[in-house]
Order: sequence, then structure tokens, then C-alpha cells
Amino acid sequence: MAEGTASGGPLAALAALRGLRLVDLSHPLHAEMPFFPAKVPLPFERTQTAFLERMGVSSGRFSMSEHQGTHLDAPCHFVESDVSVEDIPPDHLVAEAVVIDVSAAVAGDETYRLSVADVLAWEAANGAIPGGSYVLLHTGWAERWSDPERYNNADAAGGLRHPACTPEAAQALVQRGVLGVGIDTLSVDNLLVGDVKGAAHKVLHGAGRYVLENLARLDELPARGVLLMIGALPIVDGTGGPARVLAFVADP
Amino acid sequence: MAEGTASGGPLAALAALRGLRLVDLSHPLHAEMPFFPAKVPLPFERTQTAFLERMGVSSGRFSMSEHQGTHLDAPCHFVESDVSVEDIPPDHLVAEAVVIDVSAAVAGDETYRLSVADVLAWEAANGAIPGGSYVLLHTGWAERWSDPERYNNADAAGGLRHPACTPEAAQALVQRGVLGVGIDTLSVDNLLVGDVKGAAHKVLHGAGRYVLENLARLDELPARGVLLMIGALPIVDGTGGPARVLAFVADP
Repeated sequence: MAEGTASGGPLAALAALRGLRLVDLSHPLHAEMPFFPAKVPLPFERTQTAFLERMGVSSGRFSMSEHQGTHLDAPCHFVESDVSVEDIPPDHLVAEAVVIDVSAAVAGDETYRLSVADVLAWEAANGAIPGGSYVLLHTGWAERWSDPERYNNADAAGGLRHPACTPEAAQALVQRGVLGVGIDTLSVDNLLVGDVKGAAHKVLHGAGRYVLENLARLDELPARGVLLMIGALPIVDGTGGPARVLAFVADP
Repeated sequence: MAEGTASGGPLAALAALRGLRLVDLSHPLHAEMPFFPAKVPLPFERTQTAFLERMGVSSGRFSMSEHQGTHLDAPCHFVESDVSVEDIPPDHLVAEAVVIDVSAAVAGDETYRLSVADVLAWEAANGAIPGGSYVLLHTGWAERWSDPERYNNADAAGGLRHPACTPEAAQALVQRGVLGVGIDTLSVDNLLVGDVKGAAHKVLHGAGRYVLENLARLDELPARGVLLMIGALPIVDGTGGPARVLAFVADP
């Protein structure tokens, strides 16, 4: 048992985690949740396939886009890349996260995008964005999750009016060595319609970085001091995958 | 930054994890992987829905059973229960694990099932099974994963001949307060055909415990000293869900 309980062992790490507060950053998956209206817009779907009463077992099957619900985008989503979701090294799935709160700006502009100035202001207040971290953009949008029309907030042309990230800010974060950028909206790019340009996606994926979308409860996280675990499904050739995302923060 | 770097904070926990070895216990998901031959046996399926060259974005949609690939079974899978996969408290998804190696017995009996005597022998060698842990049964079966016919190993009647767990051993583990039982085969019950009895499932789920199936790389884990993270998809009403399962062990 020495390997488990010795200082630095797995059980010591578990004890450290038990002293923290666990925040579930994942939205539950169901047919009425918001989703990106792709060319052929199909919602998440679940079908009961076995019934306890008459079959002795209860089971279901589900169908969804790789980019529905709380999910991770792999580099091959928006650029030519060999890296699909199952190729991501597992140690990229457990990392530090920092949170940039742009909810005040979003209150005055529904399509507000994180700017380089926001990154610099965050660093002036909190220190350098750490390399190897995920930068999570807290926009306040998650409170709209239960109302898909307000969450998508489409204009007459179908463009999605939600907060996002400028390609310039994405580039600044790439330069700081982040593993990825996360957001509590449908996408790190906004005003998307049909076949899309995805400027921030292209900057991030072009540099081999990941994107997390439809995150929940970012309002419960501090600016610094977040341990992130990204349980992304390892779909072979997946351009992304739904993920159970958990965060650990100090329990004040 | 004090909250992040202070002893006991999230970044201290992350530093502790970084000193460990990360083992991915999940099999990649693809159409050719083994799966339980239910009444209507449908494999995992992935369809490319957007193509980078002509649409500027690459995307896919997938369809699968809640019980395909590496996955978690929720209590409502085999008993009347209000607890489906999205109801599981998140802190049940990060826990200690212990490993019982029955691969030697399996070498002489393909349908070998964990016995109460095995549990007692493990405890005599390793100490009491800890409450709040997951007990993972290493049977050696994962090396058959790439050959579905050998993994399912069906008899003439369709009964699946793979290692499993007796209901008596499941009951002994429930009495020790485990959160769940995991295995590197299709099921903790074997010789299943069509509508199934699922004796070990019923014992575990009846006591509100979980089941993990189709685990990979249990041969890389020690008997004690494993930190387990179960990234189960929170499917509303899900009788289970595919899960990205990661383990941290001492790096010798």
C-alpha cells in the first residue's frame, strides 16, 4: 500500500482533490438542448431500445453531432490536420484553466468578442496566462441554455448572435502556449451561417490547439486556480467529441 | 494566485497528478469494435456530415448504444431506479480504484467469474477493499478487443463466453461500500443471450452502485493506489453512457 498512500502518490492526489470543490462544467444531453443549425440540423436524439418490465433490462441508443452539448473540437475540425479527437494525448485532458470574465461587456453587446486588450487587462490583474492551460471565456451565456432560441439568438439571415473570440485574441493566447480556449456559447466564432469561416477556430486549430464549447457554470470558477478534466470521447476520426468536463477549485 | 498555488489548492493537486503516470482506460470508438449483440444489433456508427475542402469545416455525427465502447452502467440499467447516468453525483466520478487480477484463472476458464474467495484472497494480500472505491477486474480480455469474434466469443446459442463476476462476489463488494465494479469485458455478467438476467448487475444496481465495462489497459494498473476519473456522458434518462476513463498511478 506504500505506493498509494506515500506523499505524492495517487491517493495523496485524491485526498488533495477531496479538499477542493468539484464543479461540473457539462450540460446534460437531451433532445431539447440548443445546437448549431448546420446545413442539415439534427438535434441530439435518444431512443429507448430495451424495456425493463418486459425484457429485464433497460437500454438506449443515442445519436448526436460531434459538436453538440458540452464538447471538444479537435484541430481537424477547421484546418487540414492529422489530429482528430482520439489522437489528443491524454495528458492534454487534465490541465490548469484560467477564466476571463467578459460578462460585463456582453451585457452591452450580445456579439462581444474577446479582444487582445481583454487578454492584456486580465494579465495586468492576474499575472501571465500560463502555458499549458485552457483559457475559459465566461460570457454569462450559459443562463440561456434552457431556452434554445435565446441561446442561438439568430438574426434574420441565420447568423448566430452570441459572444465569441476574435482571431487576434486567439493568436495572443496561442503565443502564450495555451492548450486551448473554452467558451460558454455554441462557438468561439459568432455570426456563423451555414458554411462558415471560423476565424478563431482556424487560428487555434492551425496551431494544434483545442476548443471547448457549450461549457456550463463558468460563473462558479475563479480567475485562477482551476484544475480541469476533459473527458472527451475518443471517436476515431472524430472532428471533436462530446465531453464530460469537470473542474476542481478551492473551497473557500 | 494564492488560491491556486497554496498547499492544498487546485494547482498543488495538479502538480501531484503531473508526478503520476496517466493510463487511458478507454478504447477508441469506431464501427469495427466489439459490442453486445442486442435484439437489434447495431454497431457504433459515424457519418461525415461536413467536408473541409468544399464547406470550410469538417464535422461528423455518430450513433451508438449507451452500452457500447468503454462505458458506465447506471442503476436504472437493470433495476427499477430513479438514477440514470446524468443523476450520478459528479464526486462519484473521481475516486480510488483497486484491481483484482483474475487473469490466471481466466487462462484456464474463459467464463471464469470473480468469486467471494477471490475477494477474500485479495484482501488477505492487500488489505481491506476500501469503501468508496471502484473494484476493477483485470481478466486479460482486453487483448481480444481488436478481434470482435474472439472478444464476444459466443457459443452456439449466442451466449457470450467471457470472464465476469458472480452475484455473490458483487454482494461482498457492495457490503464493503464500493461505488462500483469495472471489468475489461462486455459485461460483469456472462453467457448472456438476448433478454438477459444480469445477476451481478442486479446486485450492484439494486444497491445503487455503478458498473464500468469494456475497460482497457487494466494490466498497467497496480492492485492498489489508483486514482480513477470517469468522464461519463450525462445523457438525460440514460441507462448508462460512454465514458472517457483515465487512471493515475505511481510512476515507478
